[in-house]
Amino acid sequence: MTATYSKTRSSQSAFEALKCKECGAEYEPKATHVCELCFGPLEVKYDYDWLRKTVTRETIEAGPNSIWRYRQFLPVETDNVIDVGTGMTPLVQANRLARRLGLKKLFIKNDAVNMPTLSFKDRVVSVALSRARELGFTTVSCASTGNLANSTAAIAAHAGLDCCVFIPSDLEAGKVLGTLIYNPTLMAVHGNYDQVNRLCSEVANTHGWGFVNINLRPYYSEGSKTLGYEVIEQLGWQLPDHIVAPLASGSLFTKIYKGFNEFVEVGLVEEKAVRFSGAQAEGCSPIAKAFQEGRDFISPVKPNTIAKSIAIGNPADGVYAVDIARKTNGNIESVTDAEIVDGIKLLAETEGIFTETAGGTTIAVLKKLVEAGKINPDETTVVYITGNGLKTQEAVQGYVGEPLTIEPKLESFERALERSRTLDRLEWQQVLV
Amino acid sequence: MTATYSKTRSSQSAFEALKCKECGAEYEPKATHVCELCFGPLEVKYDYDWLRKTVTRETIEAGPNSIWRYRQFLPVETDNVIDVGTGMTPLVQANRLARRLGLKKLFIKNDAVNMPTLSFKDRVVSVALSRARELGFTTVSCASTGNLANSTAAIAAHAGLDCCVFIPSDLEAGKVLGTLIYNPTLMAVHGNYDQVNRLCSEVANTHGWGFVNINLRPYYSEGSKTLGYEVIEQLGWQLPDHIVAPLASGSLFTKIYKGFNEFVEVGLVEEKAVRFSGAQAEGCSPIAKAFQEGRDFISPVKPNTIAKSIAIGNPADGVYAVDIARKTNGNIESVTDAEIVDGIKLLAETEGIFTETAGGTTIAVLKKLVEAGKINPDETTVVYITGNGLKTQEAVQGYVGEPLTIEPKLESFERALERSRTLDRLEWQQVLV
Repeated sequence: MTATYSKTRSSQSAFEALKCKECGAEYEPKATHVCELCFGPLEVKYDYDWLRKTVTRETIEAGPNSIWRYRQFLPVETDNVIDVGTGMTPLVQANRLARRLGLKKLFIKNDAVNMPTLSFKDRVVSVALSRARELGFTTVSCASTGNLANSTAAIAAHAGLDCCVFIPSDLEAGKVLGTLIYNPTLMAVHGNYDQVNRLCSEVANTHGWGFVNINLRPYYSEGSKTLGYEVIEQLGWQLPDHIVAPLASGSLFTKIYKGFNEFVEVGLVEEKAVRFSGAQAEGCSPIAKAFQEGRDFISPVKPNTIAKSIAIGNPADGVYAVDIARKTNGNIESVTDAEIVDGIKLLAETEGIFTETAGGTTIAVLKKLVEAGKINPDETTVVYITGNGLKTQEAVQGYVGEPLTIEPKLESFERALERSRTLDRLEWQQVLV
Repeated sequence: MTATYSKTRSSQSAFEALKCKECGAEYEPKATHVCELCFGPLEVKYDYDWLRKTVTRETIEAGPNSIWRYRQFLPVETDNVIDVGTGMTPLVQANRLARRLGLKKLFIKNDAVNMPTLSFKDRVVSVALSRARELGFTTVSCASTGNLANSTAAIAAHAGLDCCVFIPSDLEAGKVLGTLIYNPTLMAVHGNYDQVNRLCSEVANTHGWGFVNINLRPYYSEGSKTLGYEVIEQLGWQLPDHIVAPLASGSLFTKIYKGFNEFVEVGLVEEKAVRFSGAQAEGCSPIAKAFQEGRDFISPVKPNTIAKSIAIGNPADGVYAVDIARKTNGNIESVTDAEIVDGIKLLAETEGIFTETAGGTTIAVLKKLVEAGKINPDETTVVYITGNGLKTQEAVQGYVGEPLTIEPKLESFERALERSRTLDRLEWQQVLV
């Protein structure tokens, strides 16, 4: 491993090497994620000239209906990738939500129905495990706030890889069961995500496992670029004006940005200024605070929010996220847990999409930004919904209505219907008074 | 409304009229589902000559990535359909499950990740509500075992239709919350599905609402044909040799059959014998019993099974399902609740797909049929998985492993790992003894 690594590339892929994001030193593309010279994070380096000559809109459209239609932009060397249908989730035109908020062109990128485990993590895990297999790993692992554990356990099961995942011990029941069902080794750690993550860094050094978000992180994180590519393709090969996405480690945000820029760079889409706005929960908002205070560094916090899937107190890519929001004229905002619940309900009632707390956070921040005049009603705005509400049912229990319990008789139904209509009228009268 | 109805068709669609499945009488395509002459069920009638001339593999492939790529085969008159990305779910080649069972070419049609509400019901509801809107309904409704309630409430929310849904009051928590979140009127009926269904038939006559599975049933049920079309297209425009699907009312089963036959009829796929096998839970197996006893009628039962989503004691299309299984040389089998739980776990561990009890039933029946020599290992077999396990978490709680709880310290992890490996070894020794 040297700082002047160069290799002959696979003829199927533009993927060349790893490169330090800070000092530019290059490395052989093995299971490594930190620069030996400056301790900066390593990123995947591609041959964009080759991509420009090789990939067209037509070659992409002729590809599989999954993230692997963008295979040439992903860090794998062979065609033997793990494709369980991940990606190509709907970009839903959200007319009813748009009207409610006073926007004109609003789209929801709905990864609440991503495959196989209903969060955007299926994208990064599909890439990480495909690369892990190429690198010869037989056991894969991760430090997770829940969704990543679900996805790593499921896709490892499909691929026949051994799997050991680490989570904080206080996660939602759906996320725990949604991991155990795939029969991995599941370590529930007494501590928050940042403690879990530190423990995993130690384990990665001693056990020779492929940790998707530690030693495989450069490959893993590239999977999120597909959330940029798909939006461009689904908008008819155009960039949006404004995107709103949740911020946990900040990686997703930076990779959507990278995805947009790569498609401009290789001539697949016309260049245009896109504003990047980020969403955090007030109970864990180190990136929002750095943005609002004009800082270039993140002050770690101890998370305390119902939005557990994005509760990372010491976010690895936080500074990069702040930088992108600033230079694109975007914003980073945070919302309370009560606003998060309202955000979940608002999206469900207007668009029929049931998202988890991270999605509630993003919708609530969207609303806050619109109300503050920070999103122009004419902007084509894309909101990234990254996970499914069935996994965090605790968050809304007690905040949705109750069923009307009736006997299986017409008169019992009629009485209940009359009661509910009277209640609705009373509520309206209270609103009007 | 007459028995000799004929009309001028929309130029976009082959959809002509409703026709009695028993006596052939034709009706204007309104909100009606029973023949006035013989009380037989009404079905949609198409102009197959027009379809043969108009639709090709290429026109389908150029369509949207949803069930609406088959729009000409669906009972809608305008292009103003409700498309929330429903359909085109993955057909996963299930190599690990196939090896475990001793099969060679096994595929899972994975509607556990269907959009937007993670069950095949999104197909039928997308069609029913599109047609409901064409017919001028502003309130839509259904009698549901859970998945249909989720789907009707969600898609009605997206489309801005008022919604009132009826469920048995003992459904799983995920299915209740997964309906309430969209803010419909939810009636929880003290009784089983068959009682709910009878009540809804009365309400349909008095309130002028569009009940997707009652007065809109002819349109609604056509949505299931897309599970046939997609499998043909995803197999590279070929029919499978054998399919296994769950049986509730029997409608899904008959519509996959209809979908296959229509594509043969209009020349989109080469004719081939396909065997149809059906799956029921022992606690509600009126169709399996009729099949096994060689009867041409269904004796209704009182359901008692964890597989609530398929617990229909008086299945409307049961006799048609029996007929199809018989004439295609298929089978209809039932399995115990314990086998259903094992089926859920088997699919999760081998393929990374977390299905609900209906899917567990189908996998358990697949296993039973293979073990009985009723599926040939060389047959290309497609198993239909129709719903997501996150909605029926109760069914597997207590039957999956537990997390290993540790402190955020390397030595705590190492001790837990050693313990778990010792336990694994002991289990293996017990297996080997």
